[in-house]
Amino acid sequence: MTVHGLQSIFQEQEMTETVHDTEGHGYLATFIGKNGRLVILRVPVHGLLTIDLQCCEGDNIVQVENLLNALEKKLRSLLHGNIKRVKRLPALIRGAAVDRYWPTADGRLVEYDIDRVVYDEDSAYQNIKIMHSQQFGNILILNGDVNLSESDLPYTQAIMGRGKENYAGKEVLILGGGDGGILSEAVKLKPKMITMVEIDQMVIDGCRTHMRKTCGSVLDNLKGECYQVLVEDCVPVLKKYVEEGKTFDYVINDLTAVPISTAPEEDSTWEFLQLILDLSIKVLRPTGKYFTQGNCANLTEALALYEEQLGRLSCPVDFSKEVVCVPSYMELWVFYTVWKK
Amino acid sequence: MTVHGLQSIFQEQEMTETVHDTEGHGYLATFIGKNGRLVILRVPVHGLLTIDLQCCEGDNIVQVENLLNALEKKLRSLLHGNIKRVKRLPALIRGAAVDRYWPTADGRLVEYDIDRVVYDEDSAYQNIKIMHSQQFGNILILNGDVNLSESDLPYTQAIMGRGKENYAGKEVLILGGGDGGILSEAVKLKPKMITMVEIDQMVIDGCRTHMRKTCGSVLDNLKGECYQVLVEDCVPVLKKYVEEGKTFDYVINDLTAVPISTAPEEDSTWEFLQLILDLSIKVLRPTGKYFTQGNCANLTEALALYEEQLGRLSCPVDFSKEVVCVPSYMELWVFYTVWKK
Repeated sequence: MTVHGLQSIFQEQEMTETVHDTEGHGYLATFIGKNGRLVILRVPVHGLLTIDLQCCEGDNIVQVENLLNALEKKLRSLLHGNIKRVKRLPALIRGAAVDRYWPTADGRLVEYDIDRVVYDEDSAYQNIKIMHSQQFGNILILNGDVNLSESDLPYTQAIMGRGKENYAGKEVLILGGGDGGILSEAVKLKPKMITMVEIDQMVIDGCRTHMRKTCGSVLDNLKGECYQVLVEDCVPVLKKYVEEGKTFDYVINDLTAVPISTAPEEDSTWEFLQLILDLSIKVLRPTGKYFTQGNCANLTEALALYEEQLGRLSCPVDFSKEVVCVPSYMELWVFYTVWKK
Repeated sequence: MTVHGLQSIFQEQEMTETVHDTEGHGYLATFIGKNGRLVILRVPVHGLLTIDLQCCEGDNIVQVENLLNALEKKLRSLLHGNIKRVKRLPALIRGAAVDRYWPTADGRLVEYDIDRVVYDEDSAYQNIKIMHSQQFGNILILNGDVNLSESDLPYTQAIMGRGKENYAGKEVLILGGGDGGILSEAVKLKPKMITMVEIDQMVIDGCRTHMRKTCGSVLDNLKGECYQVLVEDCVPVLKKYVEEGKTFDYVINDLTAVPISTAPEEDSTWEFLQLILDLSIKVLRPTGKYFTQGNCANLTEALALYEEQLGRLSCPVDFSKEVVCVPSYMELWVFYTVWKK
């Protein structure tokens, strides 16, 4: 009876029905209309009734909305008193020039309020996108991974020790950080010298132009009064520092969650992380601190693995962690502070 | 050729193909397999190729993933060099006991990491859900609208003036606030007296039990040393205060975005907002402040309308606003401070 009641609506819309054989999995039909419009209707013997409506680019959205409204109204009257829950989800828009779907690190579907692509280039290392969000400003997305938006000062503050550290007169090493956020905040704190090692000149170029709320003018030159930016792979740089016995008060690891490297020896993510960690701790002064992002708070297994790694370094360390809300991430993020025992 | 290449995969899966007539909108076929599994394949002459895979409860998820992997691999090899973008979205799970989709105020689709329903009751006024999120703790959802999670102290701080106000010895009126968040923070600040007017006893009961990280023990009694909770509609209470000439140093409007009321006179949302605003300003001391949430930062028209209203009150006021990141909202939120000119 439910099916029959809905069919009249599809007939009015001049949609052609095909009933499919589901071998006992209830009624399943597809209805094809004008402009390539398609409805998939599932009516199980009991349980969840679903209606999917697909339409193509250029279809009349008002008509589509009206069809959905008519179907919902009819369903409510047909099943009156037998409905536990009715839910209509916002439309998924696929293939648009502006992709608004950037799933979280823990795999959830989230739609961003992105309204334009500002920058989209492939460097030798990765795909670099900068997209504009109405609320967050520009967002840097590396290989599909939301890195930082212009509203994400809490990220930068968290990975610098949340205002609890005194940077004045200190020597600072930043690994990665091509968006310039950390560098821009750190130079304000009058350190003796900041060295930033970012592999990808194109990230620097894109952010210098399009993420100015994050980097200010700090990326306009690769050298400043109290900082230098080395456009290099950080692994050989760290190795050289270890050899030379050069050390730092703060080492800030802002490399992307999925590491990139020019060296062939680090083929697994974890081995790479371990290598960076070990080298970083080696260039850290006895009173120094190593800051890094961990992962999203929900990925408890990955976090546990990372903490296990911290226990296996050549130099014994202690650590603390903090859960921080980074506005554009849509998920809470864990940051670590590591120091020598 | 693309279609033919994919068909072999569906044949291997013993799925039955139905080709639909799209009247020139490209190739459109549905494939039905075992367990009610359904694939919708659209291959336009040029542009976006889409594959939708629907499966029912109890289907073998590994098999479904394998099918998707096989289709993606085949597509990549068939269209090698002609693909601009490949995107696979996380599965939408409909009809589950735990609903994870709670769209933002600006209508975007977001999936929460909700893993259990803690409380789900209909009061005389609204549907009250408290759901557990792995990262945010319990979340209060009123009539499908995410109100507050146990991680949302930034909301409470924002609607109390962000620590810039001195509550000591002051008289405070809270409108709504049944989750107890504001009350719990306010009592710590040693005010003279807080009066909270919440219409819905069931919100108080649910939050007292399941939102203790938010309300602490403050809702265990409706009266404390420096506070009282009136379980009443705030409109008649406000009117009585106006008549009596009772005034407050702080009025905090924490009513839900969509207002609820027992009075018949406020049939439109805006009229209700206007009424509350006007009465609130009337009970505000000349040096007092009125705090309220506005709306999501993206709803610029609604915010402009609200600000227009502020200009039309019986007593002239000034206001300031602030954009705040409330962790569980997945969108930036605007808060207002209003004072008498």
